[in-house]
Amino acid sequence: MSLKNDLLLKALRGEHVERPPVWMMRQAGRYLPDYIKLRKKYDFFTRVQTPELACEITLQPVDQVGVDAAIIFSDILVIPQAMGMTVLMEEGKGPLLPETVKNKEDIEKLHTKDAEERLSYVMQALTLTKKELNNRVPLIGFAGAPWTLLCYMVEGKGSKSFDKAKQFCFTQPELAHQLLQKITDVTIQYLKAQVKAGVDTVQVFDSWSGMLSPEDFKTFAQPYLIQIADAVSADAPVILFPKGSWYALPELSNSSAAGLGIDWSLTPQMAREMTHNNITLQGNFDPSKLLAPIPEIKKAVRKMIDGFGTQRYIANLGHGILPNVPVDHAKAFVETVKEYSAVSNSVVS
Amino acid sequence: MSLKNDLLLKALRGEHVERPPVWMMRQAGRYLPDYIKLRKKYDFFTRVQTPELACEITLQPVDQVGVDAAIIFSDILVIPQAMGMTVLMEEGKGPLLPETVKNKEDIEKLHTKDAEERLSYVMQALTLTKKELNNRVPLIGFAGAPWTLLCYMVEGKGSKSFDKAKQFCFTQPELAHQLLQKITDVTIQYLKAQVKAGVDTVQVFDSWSGMLSPEDFKTFAQPYLIQIADAVSADAPVILFPKGSWYALPELSNSSAAGLGIDWSLTPQMAREMTHNNITLQGNFDPSKLLAPIPEIKKAVRKMIDGFGTQRYIANLGHGILPNVPVDHAKAFVETVKEYSAVSNSVVS
Repeated sequence: MSLKNDLLLKALRGEHVERPPVWMMRQAGRYLPDYIKLRKKYDFFTRVQTPELACEITLQPVDQVGVDAAIIFSDILVIPQAMGMTVLMEEGKGPLLPETVKNKEDIEKLHTKDAEERLSYVMQALTLTKKELNNRVPLIGFAGAPWTLLCYMVEGKGSKSFDKAKQFCFTQPELAHQLLQKITDVTIQYLKAQVKAGVDTVQVFDSWSGMLSPEDFKTFAQPYLIQIADAVSADAPVILFPKGSWYALPELSNSSAAGLGIDWSLTPQMAREMTHNNITLQGNFDPSKLLAPIPEIKKAVRKMIDGFGTQRYIANLGHGILPNVPVDHAKAFVETVKEYSAVSNSVVS
Repeated sequence: MSLKNDLLLKALRGEHVERPPVWMMRQAGRYLPDYIKLRKKYDFFTRVQTPELACEITLQPVDQVGVDAAIIFSDILVIPQAMGMTVLMEEGKGPLLPETVKNKEDIEKLHTKDAEERLSYVMQALTLTKKELNNRVPLIGFAGAPWTLLCYMVEGKGSKSFDKAKQFCFTQPELAHQLLQKITDVTIQYLKAQVKAGVDTVQVFDSWSGMLSPEDFKTFAQPYLIQIADAVSADAPVILFPKGSWYALPELSNSSAAGLGIDWSLTPQMAREMTHNNITLQGNFDPSKLLAPIPEIKKAVRKMIDGFGTQRYIANLGHGILPNVPVDHAKAFVETVKEYSAVSNSVVS
């Protein structure tokens, strides 16, 4: 059975759309009152690992905010977990990995096989969500990028500069590449399994790639993003989101990725120029701007679409939605995209 | 009496230098064992407000690491303090401003006069340091940029997204501009007083400007940076450092600033291109890379200078030095710049 609303997939394939599709990173969760109720009853990994809960949370923004795609409720750190690491999540405090990767032995003992079995709860959540969505909108799967996962696996927690992770890469580059390759291998298995379980497209989040200089990005991040895009693109369109790494956009626009995520550190026009108008772009609303008054949000959303054009474009935030965004502000964002009527202003023909 | 080593000032004036000058942001402090000893004896604001201590800390990297300039040991939050706000600094925890700016009344009660008197301890520290330096190297003064100070004054502490500060700007732009103008007025008085007290150049740190979209930077950050540069340039050369705001480099290169600070999110070549080779650039070594083995540091420093060229260039980090950098690594950075012999590879003629 075909999707009733396949705007997202059309945009990713570069097909003509009557208006741009819209969804929001981190839309499943934290700013929605119904999610906050569930959070009081179940801890983080219970919510992630219980297919019924993950499905319910995934559907909330589709039902309540009217986005054009669902993204499975999960976490990028399920991969380090599946590789054998302990990941603790204290509410409101961010993740903690008490036993970090420090040496060759730590890397050697990481599991790289059976990702699908180890993460079977994700596959069950996807199958269930796909059924409950009943083809209303596409379902997005995701994974963290190898560099970003290395950051957490080596640093053990969030950080302003991830200097332990970088020190590891700068002092033991061979080990860093071994670790990055292992993460890449598992991620490819994982994303392929997600497609088999029903997702229509996948996004790879490189949340910390902007910490790297352009040269270090090319060494420690880009090759693994490209490997993933190359391996998974045959199964489903791949969106790469290298947050903060605007400098990489020209090269990534020539990769096998179907779309690139853009943060708000560049204008839509700059992003189109850097990618030579030849790839679908997604973004790039400053998440803090959803705290502005609704008329200001509407004005800024229209300006954003004017800049990107309506074709080969997916309206989204430039990073995850903030927990303190009022739901009616999130709705205003979505509705403004839906109401946008282009006066033949598409920049990609 | 003239300076024995005036490489920094020559570079800022665009005069020919035999090699680029070198200093490191946050060089006075945290990574130096002699500083850590003082930290155990005196709390943060005692160190800042006692001219003898501030002077001693300022001289340490000149004596021990061999940098080509001293930068006064102080803090950007002395301005909110002088404007009447309480600023607490818990060791290792970052600043806390318990009473934040929320409305018109909060802004109206901020002091804007007598910055020089209120910050007389800085002037005393500068006079003393200038004397103790005995013209060995130039002395750099500094201030936080208005946008970055607004972030702390409204948010009350450090933040990943400074969304309270942004919400204030997006919902009450007139108040935000009133506040930014007040900070700007005080900062101009403060920097002019620093020059009178003996500093040879001043740097304005916009540490959080990269949180803003290019458009919001033009609204809430750039006009105030330009005002400061215009007002202070008659007294001494001004270096602007809008961290993360690479998109602003083309316009700022046409301002009255003598130099621009560059972070490591762009290559030296990109920075030269964006600034049309017509301004002195300072930067842009990734501070985490000082944790790499010394031979790697040396290689990367030489590559950085190759990229920027030896003229109209000040070798520096792309942000503050990290507390866990070994002193001999910091020394290797400085020494590599000093040893660099250019084979006529200057990019600015």
